[in-house]
Amino acid sequence: MLEDKKQPKTALNNLGEFGLIDYLTQNFKIKKTSTIKGIGDDAAVLEFKTKQLVVTTDLLIEGIHFDLSYVPLKHLGYKSVIVNLSDVYAMNAVATQITVSIAVSNRFPLEALEELYAGIEMASKIYDIDVIGGDTSSSNTGLLISITAIGEVDAKKVVYRNGAKPNDLLVVSGDLGAAYMGLQILEREKEVYKVNPNNQPDLEPYTYIVERQLKPEARNDIIKLLSDLEVHPTAMIDISDGLSSEIMHLCKQSNVGCDLYEEKIPLDPQVISTCEEFKIDATTVALNGGEDYELLFTIPQTDYPKIKANPNLTVIGYIKEETEGMHLITRGELKIPIKAQGWKNFND
Amino acid sequence: MLEDKKQPKTALNNLGEFGLIDYLTQNFKIKKTSTIKGIGDDAAVLEFKTKQLVVTTDLLIEGIHFDLSYVPLKHLGYKSVIVNLSDVYAMNAVATQITVSIAVSNRFPLEALEELYAGIEMASKIYDIDVIGGDTSSSNTGLLISITAIGEVDAKKVVYRNGAKPNDLLVVSGDLGAAYMGLQILEREKEVYKVNPNNQPDLEPYTYIVERQLKPEARNDIIKLLSDLEVHPTAMIDISDGLSSEIMHLCKQSNVGCDLYEEKIPLDPQVISTCEEFKIDATTVALNGGEDYELLFTIPQTDYPKIKANPNLTVIGYIKEETEGMHLITRGELKIPIKAQGWKNFND
Repeated sequence: MLEDKKQPKTALNNLGEFGLIDYLTQNFKIKKTSTIKGIGDDAAVLEFKTKQLVVTTDLLIEGIHFDLSYVPLKHLGYKSVIVNLSDVYAMNAVATQITVSIAVSNRFPLEALEELYAGIEMASKIYDIDVIGGDTSSSNTGLLISITAIGEVDAKKVVYRNGAKPNDLLVVSGDLGAAYMGLQILEREKEVYKVNPNNQPDLEPYTYIVERQLKPEARNDIIKLLSDLEVHPTAMIDISDGLSSEIMHLCKQSNVGCDLYEEKIPLDPQVISTCEEFKIDATTVALNGGEDYELLFTIPQTDYPKIKANPNLTVIGYIKEETEGMHLITRGELKIPIKAQGWKNFND
Repeated sequence: MLEDKKQPKTALNNLGEFGLIDYLTQNFKIKKTSTIKGIGDDAAVLEFKTKQLVVTTDLLIEGIHFDLSYVPLKHLGYKSVIVNLSDVYAMNAVATQITVSIAVSNRFPLEALEELYAGIEMASKIYDIDVIGGDTSSSNTGLLISITAIGEVDAKKVVYRNGAKPNDLLVVSGDLGAAYMGLQILEREKEVYKVNPNNQPDLEPYTYIVERQLKPEARNDIIKLLSDLEVHPTAMIDISDGLSSEIMHLCKQSNVGCDLYEEKIPLDPQVISTCEEFKIDATTVALNGGEDYELLFTIPQTDYPKIKANPNLTVIGYIKEETEGMHLITRGELKIPIKAQGWKNFND
């Protein structure tokens, strides 16, 4: 969980910028036929022929998005790729390439960056994408990762946020709230460690939620599943900022309202038990927790038979007319307007 | 030159992340037919049909790449786009889209970010590109800008770094060393200001070199000129880290050597006079200064008649066999091996 103080340390200024890029990317192989030229020129060269492409970018900043006192660098590299790929899949596209830029202070030895890039390489292998470029720089403080992800998709298959229609079903993949509760566990153990550095944390009851925080996955399997089931969502978005915020984006852009059923929101048993332990409401966590990287989408009711048996998909509500507003229907059958809390990075 | 302390200040946490992106990009219009969907979904959607595309990315970090005590934010926004477009043009491509991510601390009011984005918008208008996405985040210190640029090009027209052949001519656009000397002037005036804040700097003798530092341009005009002249470079690279470093990249990737003639290196009279004032060798500045954003390329000798009359292009040397090495031929006819100094960000 904590930095091994005995690791070998090679100062970055022994390499210089050119040496660093070459060194860190030396194991990265080009696999996609759409990659004509990867790292090593002024720009990468790609070719998508008849496909459309999707482009998305995300920043991850030390002290804002991650805390290196409990996030291993390899996991961080992996996660920084995942958060970008999730946006590609939310367009119903296949991820194909990423660029990776990092800024890093001299307190990081070369071995730390190797760990980070090992995680990036692992994600690029598992999700079958090429790393085609990037930039490295020093920073005055901390670590920053900026990734741009590219994917390809048939023009007919792109799914935007704005196609939801009244009576469509609101569907979510996987379960929600686990990444947020995993973060609460890690933050608690950090405080315990500060008081007693010799304490060995027992994370056994929290393995699922901690893994959801440290090593999330992006749901390319859901994109494939929908294709296999011949289900074409009318609208889709990935859940990075909490369910309520994403529902609001989807409904506002589609000019519709919705009813979301509290009892239908999928929660893992570890989320429920940990919420009880922390005395937090599990629904609130699912609505506002963030970092789940599940997919939220809408389908016509006629497609319901195709998805109803699938354990990865849960119908959590219905799309309504815009004038009816966006509401959460609670277990007690109260109807409460949905509000976005999400992650407000500037409110710290 | 210096921050106006009386400017209105709107704290960023009055907006939150969603409000900030919406607000800053509200004036950005989509113009390119290759942009199917810009800002506002999980990812932008693009379509290039028969064209190949090029992708490049650069980070700009406060305290490393720029100093806000003398760089106006509007200029910084403009320049941050230019440094990326320069890499697109170096592939002989037409720039079409960019994504813009920024991380910013709470010490920046909204009005500062509006200035930054005004510069980005100005560059996107002048260079005819769409801003199709991005990310905003808070940072614990300072300002960071991460831009990814995309361009399109016919597959037959892409120019890599690795195509130079022995006897090709080594050609450079514009003149070199001005951006570096402009930086020296700005750094000097900053020191003067520290001692005497009421001193009004006289930048009149340095207008060209200061503008080359603060508001560089990318040479899309050269790409158009080469196309009009029907000159297809055998290899090309943009000069961001100094001529010697770029020559070495081009020669190493092409497996060739070269002779570079000191007397042919194009220098603006202001560079020469300012170098005399600072008692620095102008050739050293041109070779190692960086940030010129000119294009360095090689052409077959048979194309010489097409370019010889053009004031924007200067033949500075010849490509040789790899075994002959890379050399600078000085005015005194000494033959000195070329060494890269460039910008070593990690050696601070």
